[in-house]
Amino acid sequence: MAKTERIGISLDRKLLSMFDGLIAQQGYQNRSEAIRDLIRRRLAEQELTKPDAKAVAGLFLVYNHHSTRLSQKLTDLQHNHLLQVVSSIHVHLDHENCLEIIILKGRVKDIEQISDKITSLKGIKLSRVNTLTTGEKLT
Amino acid sequence: MAKTERIGISLDRKLLSMFDGLIAQQGYQNRSEAIRDLIRRRLAEQELTKPDAKAVAGLFLVYNHHSTRLSQKLTDLQHNHLLQVVSSIHVHLDHENCLEIIILKGRVKDIEQISDKITSLKGIKLSRVNTLTTGEKLT
Amino acid sequence: MAKTERIGISLDRKLLSMFDGLIAQQGYQNRSEAIRDLIRRRLAEQELTKPDAKAVAGLFLVYNHHSTRLSQKLTDLQHNHLLQVVSSIHVHLDHENCLEIIILKGRVKDIEQISDKITSLKGIKLSRVNTLTTGEKLT
Amino acid sequence: MAKTERIGISLDRKLLSMFDGLIAQQGYQNRSEAIRDLIRRRLAEQELTKPDAKAVAGLFLVYNHHSTRLSQKLTDLQHNHLLQVVSSIHVHLDHENCLEIIILKGRVKDIEQISDKITSLKGIKLSRVNTLTTGEKLT
Repeated sequence: MAKTERIGISLDRKLLSMFDGLIAQQGYQNRSEAIRDLIRRRLAEQELTKPDAKAVAGLFLVYNHHSTRLSQKLTDLQHNHLLQVVSSIHVHLDHENCLEIIILKGRVKDIEQISDKITSLKGIKLSRVNTLTTGEKLT
Repeated sequence: MAKTERIGISLDRKLLSMFDGLIAQQGYQNRSEAIRDLIRRRLAEQELTKPDAKAVAGLFLVYNHHSTRLSQKLTDLQHNHLLQVVSSIHVHLDHENCLEIIILKGRVKDIEQISDKITSLKGIKLSRVNTLTTGEKLT
Repeated sequence: MAKTERIGISLDRKLLSMFDGLIAQQGYQNRSEAIRDLIRRRLAEQELTKPDAKAVAGLFLVYNHHSTRLSQKLTDLQHNHLLQVVSSIHVHLDHENCLEIIILKGRVKDIEQISDKITSLKGIKLSRVNTLTTGEKLT
Repeated sequence: MAKTERIGISLDRKLLSMFDGLIAQQGYQNRSEAIRDLIRRRLAEQELTKPDAKAVAGLFLVYNHHSTRLSQKLTDLQHNHLLQVVSSIHVHLDHENCLEIIILKGRVKDIEQISDKITSLKGIKLSRVNTLTTGEKLT
């Protein structure tokens, strides 16, 4: 069971008042929750700068679904030993385009490498990778 | 059926040679494909600066799955009239944390607004939104 | 004279310990200072999403200094009525390339517009704009 | 003297027409110039992923000019042996805040490290680093 600690911080009244305004607008119910989120986001950012950190990523691919051999290439990707394909979603965007989101787990550096390669596959119009820490260290 | 056009561009020999090196390393089979990708990426970037552009987004949420009432809030999100929840994936990260990826379709401005709000939900440790153009204009 | 307030926040012991580790490594002398920085950064981020917010920007231009007529164009820029050119630095990178950093003050939207245009000037190899809030609201 | 080469690329007519629209709006006078810019930007992006690449950076610091000892710290920074301080600009933002822009030359990894540290200096309200390749390889 997680143990909670209480700390005090001092800050300028005007800064506090602006922060209170922002978090009310975002729907936070109290400052502790909002500050915990800032801290977690900072730690997660820092974690992602380490090439060996474990991460989870969503690889977004927009492609023409008439493209041949793309599915074969995507299957090959799934046999890559350094990355584990956890799951994928296929979304029909219109009569010509599909969005495939492939969820990967692996080291930051291996995710970066694969995202660099995948964009060159013929038939892929757009690609983007979104990498997050696994959050396993964040409580 | 898409009509293809052929254009000529002139560029410095040294610049061309560096570009050839990069695209070979990325696995491109020819320059046309690599340049088309640069053009599509630039157009997509530009499209996303328009608040009313149609877009598709992946909302990534890492949360403690013991959190109560989160699923209720996420259901409420799905009843938001300005965004269409297309699909979602749920991934178990460890015995405490889950990753939920919610695929949304909507206007750029509505996606930005929801992503601003969602992060304040109690129990959510990290959130990130990844927005893409629907690609319907890109051929 | 700025009035300081003291607030209490509660957070998980493990999260606190990771945060303490990060800020020690960054050289912070206490948590209050580190948390104030997170808050200011969040407020500044938010401020920059408003098109009418006042901002200060550095426009970075790498160009071949043999290019004719570039300096004329840059002078024209300085006569733009919506942006105030505060200062500029000229740095010699090598025998061919210069870096010019132009410091601008203006509304966020006007800064974005100029940075979109400037990149197309003949002779400019790379351009980048870095926009900050003026900080006048941050204490 | 730079040697120019002419290459042909084929692309879909609709994609070309959208690209022509964008570059006209940005003020480009021909496609070659616009495509060269996309190529240079891509090469520069790639270059910045290498920790040992030579780069030039602008370190933006917003701070309260009443802060004591800040100038001492900034002087220390200039004695750092891995980074060369090329120049700096000081801008008065209002009666309380200053913007200092310090232009640095060095390796990508050394620039990242210094920007991580500088933000923790007492009195600094906001900091941001903007890193560019030196452009010496781009023609």
